[in-house]
Amino acid sequence: MDDTVLRSEGPRFDSRFRAGLRELLVWRRDVRRFRRDALPLGLIDRLLGLAALAPSVGLSQPWRFVLVEAPERRAAVRAEFARCNEAALAAAAPERRRLYARLKLAGLDAAPCQFAVFADRATPQGGGLGRQTMPETSAYSAVIAVHTMWLAARAEGIGMGWVSILDPAAIAAILDVPRDWRLIGYFCLGYPESPDDTPALERAGWERRRPAASFVIRR
Amino acid sequence: MDDTVLRSEGPRFDSRFRAGLRELLVWRRDVRRFRRDALPLGLIDRLLGLAALAPSVGLSQPWRFVLVEAPERRAAVRAEFARCNEAALAAAAPERRRLYARLKLAGLDAAPCQFAVFADRATPQGGGLGRQTMPETSAYSAVIAVHTMWLAARAEGIGMGWVSILDPAAIAAILDVPRDWRLIGYFCLGYPESPDDTPALERAGWERRRPAASFVIRR
Repeated sequence: MDDTVLRSEGPRFDSRFRAGLRELLVWRRDVRRFRRDALPLGLIDRLLGLAALAPSVGLSQPWRFVLVEAPERRAAVRAEFARCNEAALAAAAPERRRLYARLKLAGLDAAPCQFAVFADRATPQGGGLGRQTMPETSAYSAVIAVHTMWLAARAEGIGMGWVSILDPAAIAAILDVPRDWRLIGYFCLGYPESPDDTPALERAGWERRRPAASFVIRR
Repeated sequence: MDDTVLRSEGPRFDSRFRAGLRELLVWRRDVRRFRRDALPLGLIDRLLGLAALAPSVGLSQPWRFVLVEAPERRAAVRAEFARCNEAALAAAAPERRRLYARLKLAGLDAAPCQFAVFADRATPQGGGLGRQTMPETSAYSAVIAVHTMWLAARAEGIGMGWVSILDPAAIAAILDVPRDWRLIGYFCLGYPESPDDTPALERAGWERRRPAASFVIRR
């Protein structure tokens, strides 16, 4: 198929690709245990390049990636996580506390690459289109960029973990970013200690995954 | 590779698959012009099955898919969109109004399959894990399920369009869902009139896409 035809019809994805995509969705994990090995040179730029292809409301591309490299900032994020995790532990239902305490909730100690993602809700890019009745679509666009990176990373054998047990204001202060940026999450990237097709929370007995039909209604 | 090895090491994705994934990200579009042809039997269930593989905070799977089939409900959503679109038009900067008026902002008239997605933020599934400091992660999980469907649909040659120029309370009322569900968006699904690798807003001269480096800072 030459480029002209490709342009006019777009690529056709075959059943082999779709089977691979399904595998990718099945094996994408929220990774909490990482090896300390450095990532291949150029990987993070490649992933960011794919993330920037994500859809965004009004083509506003409101995602902001903050690569956290300074050891003192990483330590401060780690301390902030420990504080929030302690509070979450105290709030958990009694019968779940023991289980919760055993869950590994962050790869902050080992992951070689760490970054925060924010949504710049005030960006002039996109002219505000689509954001007036649902301003949260800015944050949603950034979430989709994160998910795009997640899938692209797994396709390279790299795992990603999403840390949400954090105080957004504290993280914004640690990372010295504009005050009106909204924290989407803090992310760890690295080689997983072991791949798995079952969510860690399911393996740990915390929760089980339900089939799609449980979430569908008709109107 | 037999199943045992697959289990212990996970699938390895090759460069051919990664090239396909990149094509998928490049050619996934927010589709606004659909053909009226019905979708293949079983397609929507297959897509919903893949969406349910999306990651979710605390494995809470807070996404709720509302398939909108009744003509009177579709008409009510269409009217609500027209009302919000009119207001958005009035609020647009003067020099952009003419351009905005020409943009096709919804496929609501033609798309054979339409659904709303909500986040059930109060779901007991997941025990509240990860949601205490950042409760918006429930909505983010539903957003990722939407994006999963979007990619899976495009891999089957089906286009999806996201409508966000809507009043969430009005849509919840039209669709008669629990009042504490949060609207993520309203979606159209169908065969695109024509595939394209350039965002419609870029083609229309509304906005242009920027490279990833514009959105990255280091700390």
